[in-house]
Amino acid sequence: MKKNILIVGAGGVAQVVAHKCAQNNDVLGDIHIASRTVEKCRAINDSVHEKKALKQPGVLEAHELDARDIEATKALIGRTGAQIVINVGSAFINMPVLSACIATGAAYLDTAIHEEPDKVCETPPWYANYEWKRREECETAGVTAVLGVGFDPGVVNAYAALANNDYFDRIDSIDIIDVNAGSHNRWFSTNFDPEINFREFTGQVWSWQDRKWTSNRMFEIRKEWDLPVVGNSQTFMTGHDEIHSLSQNLDVPDIRFWMGFGERYITVFTVLKNLGLLSEQPVTTAEGLEVVPLKVVKAVLPDPASLAPHYEGNTCIGDLVKGEKDGKERELFIYNVSDHKQAYEEVGSQAISYTAGVPPVAAAMLIADGSWDVKKMVNVENLDPRPFLGILNRIGLPTRLREGDKDIALDFA
Amino acid sequence: MKKNILIVGAGGVAQVVAHKCAQNNDVLGDIHIASRTVEKCRAINDSVHEKKALKQPGVLEAHELDARDIEATKALIGRTGAQIVINVGSAFINMPVLSACIATGAAYLDTAIHEEPDKVCETPPWYANYEWKRREECETAGVTAVLGVGFDPGVVNAYAALANNDYFDRIDSIDIIDVNAGSHNRWFSTNFDPEINFREFTGQVWSWQDRKWTSNRMFEIRKEWDLPVVGNSQTFMTGHDEIHSLSQNLDVPDIRFWMGFGERYITVFTVLKNLGLLSEQPVTTAEGLEVVPLKVVKAVLPDPASLAPHYEGNTCIGDLVKGEKDGKERELFIYNVSDHKQAYEEVGSQAISYTAGVPPVAAAMLIADGSWDVKKMVNVENLDPRPFLGILNRIGLPTRLREGDKDIALDFA
Repeated sequence: MKKNILIVGAGGVAQVVAHKCAQNNDVLGDIHIASRTVEKCRAINDSVHEKKALKQPGVLEAHELDARDIEATKALIGRTGAQIVINVGSAFINMPVLSACIATGAAYLDTAIHEEPDKVCETPPWYANYEWKRREECETAGVTAVLGVGFDPGVVNAYAALANNDYFDRIDSIDIIDVNAGSHNRWFSTNFDPEINFREFTGQVWSWQDRKWTSNRMFEIRKEWDLPVVGNSQTFMTGHDEIHSLSQNLDVPDIRFWMGFGERYITVFTVLKNLGLLSEQPVTTAEGLEVVPLKVVKAVLPDPASLAPHYEGNTCIGDLVKGEKDGKERELFIYNVSDHKQAYEEVGSQAISYTAGVPPVAAAMLIADGSWDVKKMVNVENLDPRPFLGILNRIGLPTRLREGDKDIALDFA
Repeated sequence: MKKNILIVGAGGVAQVVAHKCAQNNDVLGDIHIASRTVEKCRAINDSVHEKKALKQPGVLEAHELDARDIEATKALIGRTGAQIVINVGSAFINMPVLSACIATGAAYLDTAIHEEPDKVCETPPWYANYEWKRREECETAGVTAVLGVGFDPGVVNAYAALANNDYFDRIDSIDIIDVNAGSHNRWFSTNFDPEINFREFTGQVWSWQDRKWTSNRMFEIRKEWDLPVVGNSQTFMTGHDEIHSLSQNLDVPDIRFWMGFGERYITVFTVLKNLGLLSEQPVTTAEGLEVVPLKVVKAVLPDPASLAPHYEGNTCIGDLVKGEKDGKERELFIYNVSDHKQAYEEVGSQAISYTAGVPPVAAAMLIADGSWDVKKMVNVENLDPRPFLGILNRIGLPTRLREGDKDIALDFA
């Protein structure tokens, strides 16, 4: 049994995490939010109070923290008595925050792979570059670390485990499909930090095919899907975290990730990339100023948080799984549909932040009650998916299953 | 009679000017090149020597100069004995260089309108914002200042004057058409300084129609033309310097400028402009660095000078003039076609720099022999076009005329 949450980061996803922790503070205890910019933490706390999100009276505090400073994070964990750390800060701080958790015994949760500022999309499997090198360290210290427990990676890994446990004798392929069919009414915007968003797509596209790593270029392989609610959707094969753990943890020959992109996104991305404006390497202007082009692109783009009030439409994310059960071919789609407007009304964020921010809170609740407190480093598919999907059904991300003409809500009670 | 040339600037156009001055140093005398970066001047001089371009042994010297510093420019004019200054530096230095010429009595030539770094495309006529305010000053000092004597503006103004003097009793419209049908084999590049290139197109598009200033948006009005050598060409109505003097100096109701753009240019321009990356106003990155987006775009794009060795194909620039002569409707196209590869072989620059850099040298030769040494400020259409076009015929930019099925070289001997 663990309690008291430290949320690291104060962006759109942190806002969702804070609201959901507040709605469940009878289980989770005190809530602390820390970021380099304490004002952003305070704004989140104000929004939690405004929505009267705290289930019962309790602690909700803001802290200034540079999470690259391991000693400072250790001290804050000590001072707050946080036993669970939900890291939803920049992808560059994962390893130092994990170090602070290992040193203090706090459980560690994150939602995306660790990255180093000056490198992009390294050799697969990505988790082996940083995270998995520290498995022994976690096991020795008895520290629970659940990697990549947002929606994708995260919930889609649980869907894969569910399919593997309950629906198939043999899985031939898993296609993870992520489509945002919402509209933000801006000429162009990324839906989360532009720096992280573009970095996802500037490298090679790694997929797992015929039990081997396969490399393609971004926007090279296109596929249309007919999806529930959002309908016919254009997607492109994309590199994504979950392929890098599922391929190692499940016995499945083909695992691919498909992300929906509109023509506008493709045009903007292609121009910026080909001109060199997505580079993380500094250039020097004629005036002698040294500057990283990607950081200037980020500076001119809309703040993704500013999109939420006007965002309309739905996201649809799920796993299309093909294989065999009881000697018969089977194909099913396990998925969630979320609504931008509904998310904004509940927690003040759009559905992309919502789908990423709710799952780590469900995971924290399972660590709090002991059922996921495994005292080692795991990816989501290493854990029992049913209690996780059960909580998500209750707190805002219900799971559905489509098979042939059947399209039903799944119940995990 | 004037002699000895000071070239201000050391970019692609300055390179052409230096070579052409060297080829005519029997008329022009000593040649001096000055720029903030003296190494660029030396590299130009090296290339002049390499091509053995000096017609007769003579002075060819490089100087370091910040041309915004009027006193420094005056001192350099004094030290070198230059009586003709060809200003082909950045568009931001025109007024200070003109001041230095007025103070020393040297003749002044430039190839583009003066601009202030923090403003874009001001109210028409553009020349009235800076240049024409100083007409009296020039006349009082007896200083010859020929404004905009590149190709466009410049040669196209002479074509308009030629049409007006020799080919029409009444002109109804002048459409100036500028098409570069060359290929540089890069994914994207501007053909001259990206900062100046993009600034040309971020503001309103001013044209002169029905004897009134008319404003449109960039890429709003499109027109195809069937042109000599380069064939069918897509162009867009664009704002350009020469409309702002021709409209005031000739009695013509419609004067428009059309520039050729490929789909790639339009896409890149549209994305950069809509994202705010063409802004000349600074933005602040998340890290607190203040930076002008347009200067970062310039830093990532290819150096236009680097394109020349691989540039192939032709430019076609000219005036399509419609009106009446001897009671009959008349339509003719007065134009020049230049070849990128040929320009590179002769002077080490592509045809866009070549067409801009040869005309001011022809003008300098006419000031040297006294025929254009008018001791006041003028635009090109205020001068006799025949000796100018005659020299251009000899030194690399021959004039042709197409009328109906007839397409002939014009002779001004």
